[in-house]
Amino acid sequence: MKKITVLGSTGSIGLNALKIIEDNSDRFSVAALVARSSLKKLAAQIEQFRPRMVSVANKEKAKALRAMVKRRVKIVYGVEGAVQCSADSGADMVLSAMVGAAGLAPTLAALKAGIDVALANKETMVTAGELVVKEARAGKARIIPVDSEHSAIFQALRGEKKKNARKLILTASGGPFLRRPLRTMKDITVKETLNHPNWSMGQKITIDSATMINKGFEVIEARWLFNIPLEKIEVVVHPESIIHSMVEFHDSSIIAQLGIPDMRTPIAFALSYPERLELNVESLDLAKIGKLTFESPNMKKFPSLKLAYDALNMGGSAPAVLNAANEVAVEAFLVKRIKFIDIPRVIEKTLGLCKPAPVNSLADALAWDNWARSKATEFIKNSSL
Amino acid sequence: MKKITVLGSTGSIGLNALKIIEDNSDRFSVAALVARSSLKKLAAQIEQFRPRMVSVANKEKAKALRAMVKRRVKIVYGVEGAVQCSADSGADMVLSAMVGAAGLAPTLAALKAGIDVALANKETMVTAGELVVKEARAGKARIIPVDSEHSAIFQALRGEKKKNARKLILTASGGPFLRRPLRTMKDITVKETLNHPNWSMGQKITIDSATMINKGFEVIEARWLFNIPLEKIEVVVHPESIIHSMVEFHDSSIIAQLGIPDMRTPIAFALSYPERLELNVESLDLAKIGKLTFESPNMKKFPSLKLAYDALNMGGSAPAVLNAANEVAVEAFLVKRIKFIDIPRVIEKTLGLCKPAPVNSLADALAWDNWARSKATEFIKNSSL
Repeated sequence: MKKITVLGSTGSIGLNALKIIEDNSDRFSVAALVARSSLKKLAAQIEQFRPRMVSVANKEKAKALRAMVKRRVKIVYGVEGAVQCSADSGADMVLSAMVGAAGLAPTLAALKAGIDVALANKETMVTAGELVVKEARAGKARIIPVDSEHSAIFQALRGEKKKNARKLILTASGGPFLRRPLRTMKDITVKETLNHPNWSMGQKITIDSATMINKGFEVIEARWLFNIPLEKIEVVVHPESIIHSMVEFHDSSIIAQLGIPDMRTPIAFALSYPERLELNVESLDLAKIGKLTFESPNMKKFPSLKLAYDALNMGGSAPAVLNAANEVAVEAFLVKRIKFIDIPRVIEKTLGLCKPAPVNSLADALAWDNWARSKATEFIKNSSL
Repeated sequence: MKKITVLGSTGSIGLNALKIIEDNSDRFSVAALVARSSLKKLAAQIEQFRPRMVSVANKEKAKALRAMVKRRVKIVYGVEGAVQCSADSGADMVLSAMVGAAGLAPTLAALKAGIDVALANKETMVTAGELVVKEARAGKARIIPVDSEHSAIFQALRGEKKKNARKLILTASGGPFLRRPLRTMKDITVKETLNHPNWSMGQKITIDSATMINKGFEVIEARWLFNIPLEKIEVVVHPESIIHSMVEFHDSSIIAQLGIPDMRTPIAFALSYPERLELNVESLDLAKIGKLTFESPNMKKFPSLKLAYDALNMGGSAPAVLNAANEVAVEAFLVKRIKFIDIPRVIEKTLGLCKPAPVNSLADALAWDNWARSKATEFIKNSSL
């Protein structure tokens, strides 16, 4: 029986993971659950999965949850609570699926404690990828990716030697503005942006997909996750999102992982690795789909993707700055403070001020995150774009 | 140092294999060479690769070769000669790349002797797949496929459990008549047929590709090679021949192997397995290619493909009969005795007479092969199609 802690149990990845755990109750149980504030959902999950421990955002939420739950369960809160659920709940694996920087501390805690992490939180690797990988190595813990692209690469590398990989090829849907002319990019509205063609996701990640910085984050994540230099990581636009990503080996042989986009497949793979669970998800019928198309990414139309490469080349704290500046810019775009095309401008300006330094601790990462947020906020306030 | 015996050293697969052996002389040497009658080429290969032993078609060829070669080398001939080169030359691996039924005896001999076989000879598995697999198991020898489709499946299964495979998906180029209207199939000429879009191959295999029986042979080969039931093997037409084949697992995840069609990749993979050699073959650029297309095979236009499924369902000797009847029909088509659309008719008639019996020995396989040849020849002679 594999005991799983779910960080972000009421989000879409958390819910799908719990469904898989429920369907495979002979194989999995829940050690702990962490959610920010969806108390009703969390209370129901406690009834159903009987975790030893749960954590919520703060003391008030913890109190409110206590009043809702009859079952005996330890209720903790805040960053310390999440860290406890991660490292001290007897978990064999931690699914890291909290949104944003909040996932960093409990993820690091799990790895330090030698607990394998199924990683769905992109910010963790973007903000502190080098540190995370170092902690995993020190703790002898494994990181299994949940992102469909990294899961595809992880699967393609199965049974292979990583040193034989010539390059990783990340596929990108291209987002809703793939066919939009460059000259009308300035008129993009929030409403248009939230209309993603292939995946139904949260607002933040939908905007990140529209600017293609999402793919840049994945490049950064891949760089650390697979310990492979940036120049060996390529992005190809593939609007159908059927090939989830590929690895080219040094004999020019490419191994790819394909399927109808369905996040249950990579979630189940990460939870059950090295096993492969039987899943009731739709089978891919290539004859029915008819064709798969590919093109090079347009860095002029999607400068955020280029900025991600730049940040990784700058090294050290630059990717953390990239991530924080993007978060601030996306929030400002969502409330219509700035235009769509201002998002990369905010990032570029903020990166421009950054003198990269090593990120040796969680505190370092958070300090750079804060620094970048205040700089980006300033740029937006002063409209100095 | 891995010592390789090459059965069919002067054919296109043999030549490519020897080039790979030459380029990796720190890793491979040649144990023995077998060729039918290209004595000049063979003599040059003896000079270059210094095998212990070589075999040719018959006594006369052996004598002629002796006169051409100064180097000390044992020269043998016929089926016995090929078997000796396979099993008694000190080889660590036998590359089975002779055309037609001639490859069966030396391939079986290698497996019986516990020597791994890199298998490029389709007829071996079509004629006597069940027997071949049984001998491999008894001899504890491995069969590594060289065919691009089976190599792709072999690679997709790497690091995976075969029991988790839901289906094997073989890709087919569809051959030169994919877009030909059904009603003009009767007018197809030999010249048109020999004009294959993607691969440059011998005459026999080019015709087999045009009738799509080639894909049927591959289905039969896959059935034995991967020990998977026929109903789990699918064919999808993919004219670009970029995805070489796929495996769908029971989580609906598909692993595929892709690349620019180049037989050096699967040959090198089979020779070096479990290693992957660095190869100087063209890299696939999907953005440059732009699109990959897929459709279901048309069994009405390509009845030979359907006949292969039928033969495998009949079991026992039926696939051997299918193969032999096809060989006779293809020869008759090449000399313009019969039409293109008569090829499946000859096969169907011959299969219709066959009461399948188990193939328990090489003698059984050859007896059925002879029986089918004489029946098919009769049908053609009597024009009773």
